[in-house]
Amino acid sequence: MGDSTSPLKKKTCSSTDLELFDEVFPKLVSDIVENGLQQSEVKDALSWFKKVCEYNVPFGKKNRGLTVVHSYKYLASKVTENELQQARILGWCVELVSNHYYHTCIGMKISQLQAFFLITDDIMDDSITRRGQPCWYRKPGVGMIAINDALFLESAIYTILKKYFSDKPYYVSIMELFHETTLQTIIGQNLDLMMAPTDHVDFTHYTLDGYRAIVKWKTAFYSFYLPVALAMYMVGIDDAENHKNAKEILLKMGEYFQIQDDYLDCFCDPKVTGKVGTDIEDNKCGWLVVQALMRCNDEQRKFLEANYAQKDSSKVAKVKELYKELKLQELYHQYEEESYKQIMQLTDTLSGNLPKEMFTAYANKIFRRGK
Amino acid sequence: MGDSTSPLKKKTCSSTDLELFDEVFPKLVSDIVENGLQQSEVKDALSWFKKVCEYNVPFGKKNRGLTVVHSYKYLASKVTENELQQARILGWCVELVSNHYYHTCIGMKISQLQAFFLITDDIMDDSITRRGQPCWYRKPGVGMIAINDALFLESAIYTILKKYFSDKPYYVSIMELFHETTLQTIIGQNLDLMMAPTDHVDFTHYTLDGYRAIVKWKTAFYSFYLPVALAMYMVGIDDAENHKNAKEILLKMGEYFQIQDDYLDCFCDPKVTGKVGTDIEDNKCGWLVVQALMRCNDEQRKFLEANYAQKDSSKVAKVKELYKELKLQELYHQYEEESYKQIMQLTDTLSGNLPKEMFTAYANKIFRRGK
Repeated sequence: MGDSTSPLKKKTCSSTDLELFDEVFPKLVSDIVENGLQQSEVKDALSWFKKVCEYNVPFGKKNRGLTVVHSYKYLASKVTENELQQARILGWCVELVSNHYYHTCIGMKISQLQAFFLITDDIMDDSITRRGQPCWYRKPGVGMIAINDALFLESAIYTILKKYFSDKPYYVSIMELFHETTLQTIIGQNLDLMMAPTDHVDFTHYTLDGYRAIVKWKTAFYSFYLPVALAMYMVGIDDAENHKNAKEILLKMGEYFQIQDDYLDCFCDPKVTGKVGTDIEDNKCGWLVVQALMRCNDEQRKFLEANYAQKDSSKVAKVKELYKELKLQELYHQYEEESYKQIMQLTDTLSGNLPKEMFTAYANKIFRRGK
Repeated sequence: MGDSTSPLKKKTCSSTDLELFDEVFPKLVSDIVENGLQQSEVKDALSWFKKVCEYNVPFGKKNRGLTVVHSYKYLASKVTENELQQARILGWCVELVSNHYYHTCIGMKISQLQAFFLITDDIMDDSITRRGQPCWYRKPGVGMIAINDALFLESAIYTILKKYFSDKPYYVSIMELFHETTLQTIIGQNLDLMMAPTDHVDFTHYTLDGYRAIVKWKTAFYSFYLPVALAMYMVGIDDAENHKNAKEILLKMGEYFQIQDDYLDCFCDPKVTGKVGTDIEDNKCGWLVVQALMRCNDEQRKFLEANYAQKDSSKVAKVKELYKELKLQELYHQYEEESYKQIMQLTDTLSGNLPKEMFTAYANKIFRRGK
């Protein structure tokens, strides 16, 4: 979830929270590898995996991981340091999910992976970095081994769960939740892969329904529902009704967040976001192109087909001009206001005996965000 | 495990067992996909995954899957049809593990995957098939999507476990066993990847210890221990001691089986095995080359380096001649007899209150096999 600029910052995003969260990570890494490091026959493999963890996991904003901690604070009737620590550990498990290959492929997406092996190195775009460092799979001696490494990171989740939670009444629930979330994300990845032509522009499948399904399955379950659901299980909230309601609110928030991401990729100053958007060049099925396709006439559609998905800054600029002509910026701001209202309304209707302020705090954190 | 020619065939490998096992599969496929097929937004993804299951899973000898059924029969004090059915379902979960990408990569290994994308199609060896049909990833429109498909197959294991075993006292144990086995195989895959140079011959890491570690971690845990361990949990045998002992016997059997595989790949008539061995061409770190390296002089080592890992039948023949010169065939037969004795001895010492005849039956099934 986004960086906070809300009045709730103190409660939900203090730097202390992040520092305490970060402190847990090295201990978890030793937990994951210590057994193997003691067995001479697999020592080398575990040393390698230690590097994989340290290079790939403890970076980024860690909003997903921290959300477990914040949700626990909202939900617990009495916050204890012991349980806070457990919430941090579960938070790192969520960060490990985020690192699983089908989201980030340790720096690459499957389509990029394909491009990587179809295109020779010298004509590759060398700027492929993630979180400011070269992507893991591009480091010398890594390459395809990164796929196995990503599987290791997923596997590590269950090593951690067993070590820290096997005596908890909610152990089975959180294992099943990780299984379920993994499956949902795999389904979302399939929807995305089926839709995206890698080598030419084909807008046939760029529909709003298709876009929303991808966002929900590929991103929203693991980024928005998973962290809150873990905290709910921690404090003993495990009934279907509460989870169904929380899911409905949080998936809506996930969609809203992704649409913001798509908008900011195109229209936000890179100096503010810290990254240069490339959705247009990358032939992404994003919210803007989907909206443009719903609003354009035949001539504009041809223009879009001729200029989308090309690494040519003048063509990218032409696409952005068309977006402006179609008043997508106004549409976005209107969408943003409506979504916010809708989320608040859902929260009112569905939060039941869950703390309403937890949901509103998360919504406020991302509302009108500029990066 | 190998095809049976043993007197125990009737008990452990009747065609009825296989037929009843096969009958379960279509029902499991509908279980896995039915939920998703009812949701319009992910219907297409689940139709795709249905094809993935049907194309990739229900083939091969299914010895791993059937071993769950046979072990259950050996271990249960009273065999019931209901529990037999559960053993079959767990057997299919083991078959799903076997289909996970890091063993077969739905027909490819990571090194082949790499080759596939580094080498253009026209110079590729078109004979890459698996179980008599073209590999899934080589079918039009599949390609890299196969990685996501392999993840789906792994994920399906947990869908099945939840549906059929969540009310069983051993539910957590078998979930943890699948997690553990997955991790072990990932570790084995790493050992293998680190050792194998893909583009040149380098025998530095081709040691017996290295070979044995790869066999144990990459293959033996999931192929030999996992099926028996599942049946043990089913009948309530969950103590560390029994599992440790069974594991020791079964891992030894797994090593023995893999060494047979390596020998047969080189020295068995393709008309008997039904497949043409390519370990020498493929630069495999197999038992024969490891033994050759331990026995050859400097001159022979250079000869080996000059002729190994090349798609040239005269060079392959030269390697085989050297193997014969080094008396590896005699060594193998000697190894085979010794291993058999060792397995019997281990069984005597370690089987404890587990049925000895279960282990001896499995050993007899593979002893002196010719395919």
